[in-house]
Amino acid sequence: MSHPVLDSLLNHRSIRKFKPDPIPEGTIETILRAGTRAATAGNLQPYAFVVIDDPEKLQQISSLRGPLAIAALVDQYRLKRYFELNGAPFYNDRPINVFISYWDATIALQNVVIAAESLDLGTVYIGMILSMDLREVLGVPEYVVPAGLVVMGYPDEGPELRPRLPLEAIVHRNTYHVPSDEAIRDWYRAADEAWKDWFEHEASEEQRAKFKERGITNRAQNITIGHYTEKFIEQETRGLLENLRRAGFRWNEGE
Amino acid sequence: MSHPVLDSLLNHRSIRKFKPDPIPEGTIETILRAGTRAATAGNLQPYAFVVIDDPEKLQQISSLRGPLAIAALVDQYRLKRYFELNGAPFYNDRPINVFISYWDATIALQNVVIAAESLDLGTVYIGMILSMDLREVLGVPEYVVPAGLVVMGYPDEGPELRPRLPLEAIVHRNTYHVPSDEAIRDWYRAADEAWKDWFEHEASEEQRAKFKERGITNRAQNITIGHYTEKFIEQETRGLLENLRRAGFRWNEGE
Repeated sequence: MSHPVLDSLLNHRSIRKFKPDPIPEGTIETILRAGTRAATAGNLQPYAFVVIDDPEKLQQISSLRGPLAIAALVDQYRLKRYFELNGAPFYNDRPINVFISYWDATIALQNVVIAAESLDLGTVYIGMILSMDLREVLGVPEYVVPAGLVVMGYPDEGPELRPRLPLEAIVHRNTYHVPSDEAIRDWYRAADEAWKDWFEHEASEEQRAKFKERGITNRAQNITIGHYTEKFIEQETRGLLENLRRAGFRWNEGE
Repeated sequence: MSHPVLDSLLNHRSIRKFKPDPIPEGTIETILRAGTRAATAGNLQPYAFVVIDDPEKLQQISSLRGPLAIAALVDQYRLKRYFELNGAPFYNDRPINVFISYWDATIALQNVVIAAESLDLGTVYIGMILSMDLREVLGVPEYVVPAGLVVMGYPDEGPELRPRLPLEAIVHRNTYHVPSDEAIRDWYRAADEAWKDWFEHEASEEQRAKFKERGITNRAQNITIGHYTEKFIEQETRGLLENLRRAGFRWNEGE
């Protein structure tokens, strides 16, 4: 039985290559409207969207190009001004406010993604936005920090569905069941063997030597030594925390 | 023209009253599968779902009752074990890892919500989960912290669509345009007047006196003095940060 909503969710692919065709304004508005219908704590909507179709701006915040991007921001600035204008105190400068706003912003952005895909657009999330200083490029004021970025456009590629972990690796019932080593090995076996296959049969002699020199002999090591390195994680963490502090959030006070 | 995906997104309502009817296992599995198809950084899925149908457990983590709840957790435990089993170093204990995992967890949970609604279920997000100690009630290990909670069931109420701010309050183009005081007053006017109407014509003499005693004379003051008080925000922040530290995340190191 066809079920359009489930079909859409179950067939999500990230798209990284787009046709140059612009996205009609009516389509953009529909997508944004769908975003703002996502649930939001206390109906306060402590987030903002920045629609980016200026190629120079997009180049400054994403290494991936597309005709359009939508940045989601944690936005407590608007609420602060609203409270001030009404003689109400402002307490929303604490970590819980960042987390709740970030939650609201990301689920609104997920609605944007789902709406866009249902209108034949392809999308990709860009996580690096979290560590970027957006003051100059987007002019964000105090109490506004990045929450997410989606680049979108009409797809110019048709990738296969990427495999996910089996449900049992993700889902627990009433209690978190700490998995056995054997279960973990099982869940990752297919991906591990695909990497090993590539390493042994497709990588060049030179590539293999380079990997081995860095201590990379399997997929797990390739993730933490090859991609998400300690240095990279420290750098992204620094950018993230600098954004929060510079925006005025009281992050460590009273700890 | 009917467009099932957009219709679903645009008609979201939070539901807080449920029929007692249980949710079929096949439906639960479909919903969870839709959750795990959400985008995830590096295809790593650093999150877990806990399906809760034990009424005693649900009572411990939510003041709102329903036949089923799904908790989303930031889960770096599974990845840590996977890395350890493969001789790979683990660096994912930093704030950026919490934020990326939380992002992935919340958009997966939003897929759960959308899938559930498309199967005639009603849902409501519960934010208080972020500050709860889940070790005893859900048995979470190190590097696992709460990311979100949804209570769901077949709706036993049919609320109106709640008004959202006009799109122009949320959406910026290429640059964040700091709003004028007048614009802010305009965006909140409908909600402010509805509150004032209630305060002047529906609240009892006694209620009005109590509000005024606490310094609440308008909607904005009711939000920050009446609901999201400084004390409440500090308490929630404390729970949130205690969870992160207890789970082993290096939160403040090197700042």
